[in-house]
Amino acid sequence: MSAQPVSTPDDVGFQMYQLIADLYPLCRSITGNGLRETLRRIQQQISIVIHEVPSGTQVFDWTVPNEWNIRDACVRNKSGHRIIDFQKSNLHVVNYSAPIHRNVSRKELLEHLYTLPDQPEWIPYRTSYYNETWGFCAQHSILGSLKDEEYEVLIDSSLRTGHLSYGEFYLRGDSEEEILISCHSCHPSLCNDNLSGISVAVSLAREIERSYRHYSYRFLFIPGTIGSITWLARNEAAARKIKWGITLANVGDSGSFTYKKSRRGNTDIDRAADHVLKHSRKPYQTVPFSPYGYDERQFCSPAFNLAVGCLSRSQYGKFPEYHTSADNLEFVKPEALTQSFAVCRSLLSLLDNNAAYVNLQPKCEPQLGKRGLYRTMGGYSSAQEREMAMLWVLNLSDGDHTLLDIAERSDLPFNVLHEAAQILVSHSLLKRKA
Amino acid sequence: MSAQPVSTPDDVGFQMYQLIADLYPLCRSITGNGLRETLRRIQQQISIVIHEVPSGTQVFDWTVPNEWNIRDACVRNKSGHRIIDFQKSNLHVVNYSAPIHRNVSRKELLEHLYTLPDQPEWIPYRTSYYNETWGFCAQHSILGSLKDEEYEVLIDSSLRTGHLSYGEFYLRGDSEEEILISCHSCHPSLCNDNLSGISVAVSLAREIERSYRHYSYRFLFIPGTIGSITWLARNEAAARKIKWGITLANVGDSGSFTYKKSRRGNTDIDRAADHVLKHSRKPYQTVPFSPYGYDERQFCSPAFNLAVGCLSRSQYGKFPEYHTSADNLEFVKPEALTQSFAVCRSLLSLLDNNAAYVNLQPKCEPQLGKRGLYRTMGGYSSAQEREMAMLWVLNLSDGDHTLLDIAERSDLPFNVLHEAAQILVSHSLLKRKA
Amino acid sequence: MSAQPVSTPDDVGFQMYQLIADLYPLCRSITGNGLRETLRRIQQQISIVIHEVPSGTQVFDWTVPNEWNIRDACVRNKSGHRIIDFQKSNLHVVNYSAPIHRNVSRKELLEHLYTLPDQPEWIPYRTSYYNETWGFCAQHSILGSLKDEEYEVLIDSSLRTGHLSYGEFYLRGDSEEEILISCHSCHPSLCNDNLSGISVAVSLAREIERSYRHYSYRFLFIPGTIGSITWLARNEAAARKIKWGITLANVGDSGSFTYKKSRRGNTDIDRAADHVLKHSRKPYQTVPFSPYGYDERQFCSPAFNLAVGCLSRSQYGKFPEYHTSADNLEFVKPEALTQSFAVCRSLLSLLDNNAAYVNLQPKCEPQLGKRGLYRTMGGYSSAQEREMAMLWVLNLSDGDHTLLDIAERSDLPFNVLHEAAQILVSHSLLKRKA
Repeated sequence: MSAQPVSTPDDVGFQMYQLIADLYPLCRSITGNGLRETLRRIQQQISIVIHEVPSGTQVFDWTVPNEWNIRDACVRNKSGHRIIDFQKSNLHVVNYSAPIHRNVSRKELLEHLYTLPDQPEWIPYRTSYYNETWGFCAQHSILGSLKDEEYEVLIDSSLRTGHLSYGEFYLRGDSEEEILISCHSCHPSLCNDNLSGISVAVSLAREIERSYRHYSYRFLFIPGTIGSITWLARNEAAARKIKWGITLANVGDSGSFTYKKSRRGNTDIDRAADHVLKHSRKPYQTVPFSPYGYDERQFCSPAFNLAVGCLSRSQYGKFPEYHTSADNLEFVKPEALTQSFAVCRSLLSLLDNNAAYVNLQPKCEPQLGKRGLYRTMGGYSSAQEREMAMLWVLNLSDGDHTLLDIAERSDLPFNVLHEAAQILVSHSLLKRKA
Repeated sequence: MSAQPVSTPDDVGFQMYQLIADLYPLCRSITGNGLRETLRRIQQQISIVIHEVPSGTQVFDWTVPNEWNIRDACVRNKSGHRIIDFQKSNLHVVNYSAPIHRNVSRKELLEHLYTLPDQPEWIPYRTSYYNETWGFCAQHSILGSLKDEEYEVLIDSSLRTGHLSYGEFYLRGDSEEEILISCHSCHPSLCNDNLSGISVAVSLAREIERSYRHYSYRFLFIPGTIGSITWLARNEAAARKIKWGITLANVGDSGSFTYKKSRRGNTDIDRAADHVLKHSRKPYQTVPFSPYGYDERQFCSPAFNLAVGCLSRSQYGKFPEYHTSADNLEFVKPEALTQSFAVCRSLLSLLDNNAAYVNLQPKCEPQLGKRGLYRTMGGYSSAQEREMAMLWVLNLSDGDHTLLDIAERSDLPFNVLHEAAQILVSHSLLKRKA
Repeated sequence: MSAQPVSTPDDVGFQMYQLIADLYPLCRSITGNGLRETLRRIQQQISIVIHEVPSGTQVFDWTVPNEWNIRDACVRNKSGHRIIDFQKSNLHVVNYSAPIHRNVSRKELLEHLYTLPDQPEWIPYRTSYYNETWGFCAQHSILGSLKDEEYEVLIDSSLRTGHLSYGEFYLRGDSEEEILISCHSCHPSLCNDNLSGISVAVSLAREIERSYRHYSYRFLFIPGTIGSITWLARNEAAARKIKWGITLANVGDSGSFTYKKSRRGNTDIDRAADHVLKHSRKPYQTVPFSPYGYDERQFCSPAFNLAVGCLSRSQYGKFPEYHTSADNLEFVKPEALTQSFAVCRSLLSLLDNNAAYVNLQPKCEPQLGKRGLYRTMGGYSSAQEREMAMLWVLNLSDGDHTLLDIAERSDLPFNVLHEAAQILVSHSLLKRKA
């Protein structure tokens, strides 16, 4: 396995892939040093604020758990060989396992051992955050070699009062209203789920930081579920400023795109995602909201009901590598990351530029030809795309239609319409609606 | 032909079939002793009230007609043989025929004789309620044997001042609002149309009588058209309490289900019927309202416009046995009756249990795991159906969504969601909306 | 080529075809004597008012251009032969060409010469109304024979202050509200686009003139774009009386019908056109509004937003003969014109007769049988179309549904429902809603 992509990627894709490769070895969880170190490395690229929330803090119906840290873990057979070894893959330990060091019978070991019969060479990823127990995950293929009656089990972990860490990056725009980009950052050595989301979010943040922006932007790097619940509990009023948002997950594999709609289902971000993916001219699917998935579950809970969707390529649970050791550095591709970045960029750009305009010459069409905006020779069968874009913008700019409305109705790309609108503004034929 | 079903039916199916077999020989019409006797036999099973409305009573634009009774009818050839004989099938006489006893020419007989050229061995069912005439129905195959020039025609019937009879069974629930179940009871020896509707309605009434019910229930056993018009004319104010209703017709054959929507088209009963049939996982169709059909025509007339649909298996007029002697005891099946009963039971249960709930922990998800409502080991690809049901109920219980709304959106069966709601109520996470 | 149709047409089709044949040779443009003469010939059939608007008149964002007239044009080779000759086809000159008479090099000639490489024997139709230039159109096949280095170019035209002419025909109905029929009249020797529209409009006007009409009707014979803009600028207040309208274009070819919806998309004329075409039982398509096309562009501009659609058979730009010399007297057919006339007649008749009615016996069905409106023998599988039409009209005539609503819901033809409504009115069961 090599961290080098097979084909030559562009710079952004390569940077995103490199960040994934850098973060891959760390043993992250919903708390602890792996998560903390991940946030510090992100901080080297964008100046996030790292928050530390004490264990025991009440966050709505939940409580911030004790902090979990782990140094080593293994199962030794009677010959003393580390037959299951945390040093080889941090997936070998059930995440949040309590410490243990004693001999156990084969029967007891098997009761705490998780494998994938259908994928005998892959290690599954399992967690037990809120029920204190211990466990190992291993390749199903090793079961046959467990012939000893007794094994030495070691998990050198700790579960103690500490903190839950999360990262936050805020970019102020012209408007106080915000667009949220959130990604969970609690998974250990898994690349698509969700180092891919982290790396795309980091690159988006760097790009938006240096661009004009109408809206403000907030990036969250948080542990799944407890992280978004903690953030919402600490920022209940601020959450009302979130106009639209998106969770990023599984955006590094080569599958076609999947956009999961917000609970409200037909908000501008839902329509914009559909528009951008449709005009990418590649296969994609949009799926309705469901209360299972990533942190959109919390953002879309009934008391918040924010316009937050989820962008993925292959969808969680629908690809065999999901939550296994096969979700590794070979499974994600720089090219796929680049496409995901581009789709996000188009989506955010659309939301930032979307507006309603008012036609200042609404009685019949204005004469575009005398302004050099329309070809002077007539009789052809059709107009050019930019002419059509101007005609559509003029026809529907009655103050009731945004450019996204016009894009949907005309089936023209948003950016072509946006450009047409700017030209018409510059000829005093159009103005942005106040 | 045997009244015994081929396969062993369950008890309910067998009881329904037995009632059909018991009522089959009676010569029913829209008035008269056949109808009256039918109601008396129903009264042996459920304590219906039998109403008698005098001939001549004005009911909206109609008038209750004279009562029709018949004792015998036949056509004799010159040898004195009863070549068409009411004693063999009461379908042989045009229903509501005026009395006659005289010799007629073959020509005159043929003008009063109805047959089915496409089904030469079946007797058609014909009526002439509101135009006094006489007539016979016969197998088309006998036409060739009518070689005599003259025939003796006897219809020993009477059309005299009397009553229109109908049966009514009312079950009071917690609420005054009512669910109506109506079936026409005026067809002579025809099993699917509509002894099947009568028998399913009787079994439903017995079942609901012994169950908790939120709504009140009203069952009507009435002659078609004039019966529902009479009931509505006599109960104009009471009809406003009918929240939903259904007419039952042709529910005993082996065809797939047909639900005909109410005039309003998207009421809860229309949506509930679609939901129940969809989750029955058998083929079915829903068809839009039309002003032709059964008594839903009257319940859905513009001044009432009640939410009344019609449940059938094969639809009226769409199966060859319809309104012929082939709609007999072999055409209906105990198994089909049982399925129809089950669909009706699910439909009424859904309507009775449907409600909106309020999530008492609407800020993010409540922690189901600490209440033992969610598995504690994480990392699997999907949640279980009961976990999904709880998540859906919590997510959409903002007071605006009923369980039926949630069922439609989640594509989960209503009863699974209803059960999830009860569990959440018992954990104080949810309450029924006032 | 013969002006005689191949098959024997009916009278209306033949009249329409004859008008096309009569107008075909004239060299029309958006101003000038060709247009003026066209209007005079129309005036011989219906008493249109011919308006003359002076050059230089400001009409919204546009200015009425100088009047263009042309007497002759040709390109002569060094032998003096008229190798491109306006006398053979007026399409040979770019419409609105400025006068020129001088020798030009082959290079310069080619820069002003338009051909169709894909259709080498057809002459294209090109215009340059608002950019003063000169040009010729020719068969692509002649390019090879242009071997001389120099050519004599003659365009004996004039571009001088004058008038823009258009024709208007108004028929007052019971109501001041208007239905508009508009067709552009500025194309030279092109039959489908748009002599077909002119001829169908003329026949419609003659037909409606001698019929009862609820609405008032306005027919416009105008040059494309500048004509409708001029009319709207001069009749801004009057335009508010236009309830519905249609532009007619390309209604003479043998293609299937195309109805382009108004900007509002679901007005009565949009629904009526769909209904009429659907019940014509021939293939057709409806297409959404787009701001490209004919004068519906102006009528549907945002400040007017009138309910104006466009009826065509083959759609502009979608058939190879479009804007070429192949759009000639052989391309249009009397039969096709007759069908177009019939569709328009049905459409206008529907709009004129559409109304909501009120059922005067809304409690249950009235007894149609006792009024002789329903067959008295019962038991058949279905009702007849006229019986169904009465039942539908009675059921939905609650004052909220027009006959068009009922037609859409029942899938019965409008005229059958309209007839049923008249019968019910005559029996005092229904009245037209005030």
